[in-house]
Formats: sequence, C-alpha cells, structure tokens
Amino acid sequence: MTTPRTEITRLREKASTDRAELDRLLDTAIVGHFGVIDHGHPVVVPTAVVRDGDRVLAHGSTGSRWMRRIAEGAPVCLTVTALDGLVFARSAFESSLHYRSAVLFGRCTTLTGNEAARALDVVTDGLFPGRVAELRRPEPRELAATLVLALPIERWSLKVSAGWPDDPDDDISGDAWAGVVPLVTTPGEPRPAPDLRAGIAVPESVRRLGGRRFPS
Amino acid sequence: MTTPRTEITRLREKASTDRAELDRLLDTAIVGHFGVIDHGHPVVVPTAVVRDGDRVLAHGSTGSRWMRRIAEGAPVCLTVTALDGLVFARSAFESSLHYRSAVLFGRCTTLTGNEAARALDVVTDGLFPGRVAELRRPEPRELAATLVLALPIERWSLKVSAGWPDDPDDDISGDAWAGVVPLVTTPGEPRPAPDLRAGIAVPESVRRLGGRRFPS
Repeated sequence: MTTPRTEITRLREKASTDRAELDRLLDTAIVGHFGVIDHGHPVVVPTAVVRDGDRVLAHGSTGSRWMRRIAEGAPVCLTVTALDGLVFARSAFESSLHYRSAVLFGRCTTLTGNEAARALDVVTDGLFPGRVAELRRPEPRELAATLVLALPIERWSLKVSAGWPDDPDDDISGDAWAGVVPLVTTPGEPRPAPDLRAGIAVPESVRRLGGRRFPS
Repeated sequence: MTTPRTEITRLREKASTDRAELDRLLDTAIVGHFGVIDHGHPVVVPTAVVRDGDRVLAHGSTGSRWMRRIAEGAPVCLTVTALDGLVFARSAFESSLHYRSAVLFGRCTTLTGNEAARALDVVTDGLFPGRVAELRRPEPRELAATLVLALPIERWSLKVSAGWPDDPDDDISGDAWAGVVPLVTTPGEPRPAPDLRAGIAVPESVRRLGGRRFPS
C-alpha cells in the first residue's frame, strides 16, 4: 500500500466546467434523481438515465403520475451522483466523502414514434451494453406503454470531491489516522432466472459486465 | 451457480409499508437526495444521510444556499435509493433494475447547541462507524459552521424491486437468456493521506469497514 508523494493532490471539492468530465459521470451512472414540483411540493424520483449526445434520456411507465408530470414539460432538476469513497480526516469536521455530482436544469421533451423507439434502444444499450442485438424488437404496445423523455444538457453544474483530507497542522501532528477508503461497485455472479430454458448460455452482454466499473 | 426453484420469487416491484425495511435502507445508505423548491424551481441536492431513531439527520455548510433553504423549513422530499442489480429480461420492455427506494416528505428542523453536537456525533458514527471515539471533539467554530438538519420519518413510501424477470410465455420459449446480475459495493484498500505521520496504524474504524456492505 504505497501512496507516492508525486501523486497529484486535487482540491478537496471543486466545481468543474469540464463537459468531458460531466459526460464520464453521466455515462457510468445508472440512476439519476429527477426533481419536479407536484401540487406545489417538491418530489424526487429515481430513474435510470442514459446520455445520448447532448441530452439525457430517461423512460418510465405512462402509469406513473410523477413521470407524467415530468413528461408534461414541468421544470425539472436532474441530479446524478457517484459516491467514490470515504474520506477519513483527523476531525469529524474535515471528514467527508469523495463524490461526483452533476446537477442539470431544464424541461424534458417527450419523444414519440421512431424517435422514441430509437431512443429506447439507446437506453437499453446504455444500461445493458450490447443487449439490443440479443433481444427481439419492442412491440408497438410496449412502446405505447413507455414514456421516453429527453432532457437537453444545457444548464448544468458539476462538483467533484476527490482530494485528501485537508486537516490543519494541529491535527496533523496528533495521533489520528487520515486517508481515503475508495468504494467500488462491481457486478456479482449472474443468476439465471428460475424459468430459464436449459441450454441457453450466459450471453456476451452479461459476460462483458465483469470488467465494468459502476459508480456507487 | 444454482438457483433453487424453492427460492421465494418476490413481486417484481412492490410498495412496502414495512418500517423495518425502510430503516434497513436508510441505515445502509450513505447519500440521499433532497428536493426543495428554490425561486419556484425544483432543486435536487445530494447529501449524506444518517437515521437517528424516527428522524433522518443531514448536515451541510452554512455557506450552501440550498442547504440554508432546506434549513429554513421549506417543504422537502428526501429520496434514498439503493441500486441492487441489473435485471436481464427477454425483452427490452421487461428489462429493469433491482432497487430499493424510499421517498420521505416533510420539513427539516435545524438543530442547535448540544442537540446539534450530539446529532453530529450520530452522523459521524453513522457514516464512519466507530470514528467518533478515535477523533478529538469538534470545536465551537466547527459546530457554528455546520448546519445540522433533522427530517422526521412520518410521511414516507418505499418501493422495492427484487424479483425475477417477468417475461410472457412467448418470450420464455425463445432463445434469449434471462436473469439477474447483482451489483455489490465494497470498500477498497485504505489509502493513507500523503501527510500522515509515520507510525500511525490503520484504525479499527477503517479495518472494520472491510466487512461492510454498501448500497450502490
């Protein structure tokens, strides 16, 4: 366990305007949280999110009231957070988390027809890379039951906390340990469905997950 | 890799009114997302959350405008989500995620004085179990710079998606694989701070993290 002094020590928390860094977060995240106002009250809805160029796609059931509210074009805030580690500082005050968090503001548009069908493929392959090629095409009734939403990536901010504990000298000279414990999310062993027919092998899309890193 | 037929197949997605299940989610989660209305627009703020009996504690900097807005007692929605796995169904339509998601509504109160100091200990030990005993006490200026918020656990709902793919017979008789890939978050190797003094061992609070399971 070595920590070379030459390692770049990033600022403890910084605002980033780096679009590539935003895209990296959006591309590895699976779940985002949409905020919307419903009858004057804030509501926060967890939703799978997939970036598609300059927009974020989400989908949901036409039966979900909050999703319908978002689909109506109400102002939303989409926050996507990755928890990267626990920062053990030498005081409770300086103890913190390593995280990346994107906040996007705007209004969603509802996609329809071929555009919705294409976007759902992007969503499926975003969440389950390579899966679209392994599955039958969606049926019209399935598409009709699905809300497909797009939020433009226009007004956003990004915060990244990735540095070492930032303790004052008095604390550094004390006896408390300080450091970072990274958190890593990995896929476990695939579990076949109880009704899986005999002889169907684990497909490429599942096997290739083994090497994928997920944000916590 | 066996999946006994006797395993209980839970419903694909169910609403739960089980307070113990809510508590389990809140107790393992580290980050929650607060929704609040700011100047007529929804804002979603990621925040570390720790349950303390019948309330959820959060803290933040007095310098954060959104945290101040929440501290003022504005109506909030706190959503805490754990991503537990990827559900590979035999169609894109039935493909989904395993997750648990709690939605709490209410208003936060701001804790002060001894109550705030005690709550901050609960927060520190909730995020870094056993850490309070290893650290010096917080200083008055540190307490003064920290907003300590409590949201009562009163109005809440919980959704749990934990079942097998629910494919129609036509799809089951096809050639697509179906199953679940669990996602597991684990702590990596502790990385000591570059300015850690020689001879300070990794403490109990860090060593005991090794056995801890985190929600993704």
